[in-house]
Amino acid sequence: MTTVPVAADSLYGVTNLPYGVFSVGESAPRVGTRLGDTVVDLAVLLGDDVFARPSLNDFMAQGYDRWVAVRREITERVAGEIPDEAVHALDDVTMHLPVEVADYVDFYASEHHAANLGRLFRPDNPEPLMPNWKHLPVGYHGRAGSIVVSGTDIVRPCGQRKGKDDAVPVFGPSVRLDIEAELGFLVGTGTAMGDTVPVAEADRAIFGVVLFNDWSARDIQAWEYVPLGPNLGKSFASTISPWVVPLLALEPARVPTPVQDPRPLPYLAMESPWGLDVDLSVRWNGCEVSRPPYREMYWSPAQMLAHVTVNGAPSRTGDVFASGTISGPDRDTRGAFIELTWGGAEPVSVGGEQRTFLEDGDEVTITASAPGAGGARLGFGEATGRILPATGGD
Amino acid sequence: MTTVPVAADSLYGVTNLPYGVFSVGESAPRVGTRLGDTVVDLAVLLGDDVFARPSLNDFMAQGYDRWVAVRREITERVAGEIPDEAVHALDDVTMHLPVEVADYVDFYASEHHAANLGRLFRPDNPEPLMPNWKHLPVGYHGRAGSIVVSGTDIVRPCGQRKGKDDAVPVFGPSVRLDIEAELGFLVGTGTAMGDTVPVAEADRAIFGVVLFNDWSARDIQAWEYVPLGPNLGKSFASTISPWVVPLLALEPARVPTPVQDPRPLPYLAMESPWGLDVDLSVRWNGCEVSRPPYREMYWSPAQMLAHVTVNGAPSRTGDVFASGTISGPDRDTRGAFIELTWGGAEPVSVGGEQRTFLEDGDEVTITASAPGAGGARLGFGEATGRILPATGGD
Repeated sequence: MTTVPVAADSLYGVTNLPYGVFSVGESAPRVGTRLGDTVVDLAVLLGDDVFARPSLNDFMAQGYDRWVAVRREITERVAGEIPDEAVHALDDVTMHLPVEVADYVDFYASEHHAANLGRLFRPDNPEPLMPNWKHLPVGYHGRAGSIVVSGTDIVRPCGQRKGKDDAVPVFGPSVRLDIEAELGFLVGTGTAMGDTVPVAEADRAIFGVVLFNDWSARDIQAWEYVPLGPNLGKSFASTISPWVVPLLALEPARVPTPVQDPRPLPYLAMESPWGLDVDLSVRWNGCEVSRPPYREMYWSPAQMLAHVTVNGAPSRTGDVFASGTISGPDRDTRGAFIELTWGGAEPVSVGGEQRTFLEDGDEVTITASAPGAGGARLGFGEATGRILPATGGD
Repeated sequence: MTTVPVAADSLYGVTNLPYGVFSVGESAPRVGTRLGDTVVDLAVLLGDDVFARPSLNDFMAQGYDRWVAVRREITERVAGEIPDEAVHALDDVTMHLPVEVADYVDFYASEHHAANLGRLFRPDNPEPLMPNWKHLPVGYHGRAGSIVVSGTDIVRPCGQRKGKDDAVPVFGPSVRLDIEAELGFLVGTGTAMGDTVPVAEADRAIFGVVLFNDWSARDIQAWEYVPLGPNLGKSFASTISPWVVPLLALEPARVPTPVQDPRPLPYLAMESPWGLDVDLSVRWNGCEVSRPPYREMYWSPAQMLAHVTVNGAPSRTGDVFASGTISGPDRDTRGAFIELTWGGAEPVSVGGEQRTFLEDGDEVTITASAPGAGGARLGFGEATGRILPATGGD
């Protein structure tokens, strides 16, 4: 038996207890929690086979009451001595995609981001926001099969683009490869076709939160996206953090969203604060270039889930919905490079080099923290990816 | 032992042999083929457990060579006497969703449809087609979890809409509920992230074809779709036929697509004819209101799959991609009611009643046939659904 040492200022103390899927050597992936710099094997700790599986889905499907009970049980068990074989050093494990993704919807919930992109993509339009933007959380379905775990290399996508001066579209590697720093939300328990998830019930449906990088090829996107929305400009890859922070751990981070004016329709009304005081950090080749503040997001995760099911669409365990780029009001809080560099016109300094969009070999890492219980801060792991050169396509 | 009687003019003779998932009474769903008005249990017929499963996915994942071999084996076996316990009357079985859907992408491949919708949705735009339309097969990801098998009732969706004369959006049941008659294509074998499916290899990747009804709430869609594309206007339900016609059966139906001018970029070039001479029929409460001709489709399924993977996005066994509404040049070949009734301005006669969009209790059935080997015609089963009143939302 052993005890797990946790530094007093660790972002992974007993008030966090994120869930992830790990393996050691050639062993099959299974569910663990992170405590300090240690991964605790939950199948061993709790003696429950639901954690001996290669994704969180079966556990998530057991529902809210079980999430509460398991969190309490883990908290109690790790306070004392636990079996040696349940404990692995973080450096000794490989982390995997924590969830078998069902449907993935990406929203567009930051007013600053939507307005900035409106100005950049539709400069002739006097209103940067579309007429619908303040009435509903605009979103679209993305490619579930392209969601990968942090650390997966990102091959520069090829596709069609057509610049202002091109007579016809050209094909080749994207020349405006970008990121979108977002949070992703995992649906734990789904709903049948015809049912809805009212805002007031979203707490019981949303299991947890991950960091999410919605890699975006802006040149491909700009040419393809009218009228049916983004497709190949986004579908090549999205990176999530391996650690899922339980929504239960984020109670102390709940804050009101910005004032929603005009008042949303009744099905989108919130009775409790559904903003999240999460501070993100975006590092480009190790240099922090932005600190996007999630608390600035206009639409909340509860509203996103209520919206996406209000037409009776079924939701499923493993559905992922992402917030859309998190951008604050200031330049150094913008969560996409197209905004940070204003469409490439205003480069940023990255380790002494001037950069606009991503170059081959670049690495982007998103991290975050939020207030937890007892004055602790909670970490979200990281979502990192490195750009490899395009294959073919020239 | 028994022989299966098949009428000479059956759409389900030995040159078709579609795959489906069926159950008898309380038995677990398993894979069968349709022969005349009979369902043949393939696990029993062939003694292979891959057919004793509740979806086609494991069989599809075995790949093209195996699809060819199994088709040959079934053809040989059903020509003689087969075990009694392999044979079920069509009326005695329940059909299920044939595939566990991975990602679902809906295209927009009919020039007639795209132009009609351009005129209806963007009347101020002198060009009905967007500038990108003839350069790439425009498509978007839809909600995989909303795909249901033929016969599933469709509850009228609720959502936001905003008419020209509305100062603010209103919430309630859709008042412009529509269909889109399409074909859906099932990906049998996938590709890893970073790989592509060239047009020339699409034959080996696409397993088969289903009928597809992309139910659409036009009022919800019109309000939400700018700039990220359709979401709740489509995500409540899509209906597919239970029978998957193998692409191998459709060799005699292969025809050239309409001339593609301007010539597509090289990655979209076709060496062999990839159009399909499939005649669809749309019945509204039993009255045929349209006969959409698939051979009119501008973009081919091989081009759709090549496009969706050209950026390195992974494809998976169970991916479904749909053609988009199939509309021909004439009014009575339009595959969506918004076109057929020109936005509701020109009602159609349905059993003596004048109709524009769907009313509660209405039933829509899509069927199709295509030339098969030896002069036979091949049937696709049917994709049918009945509209139930909205629940809540008023």
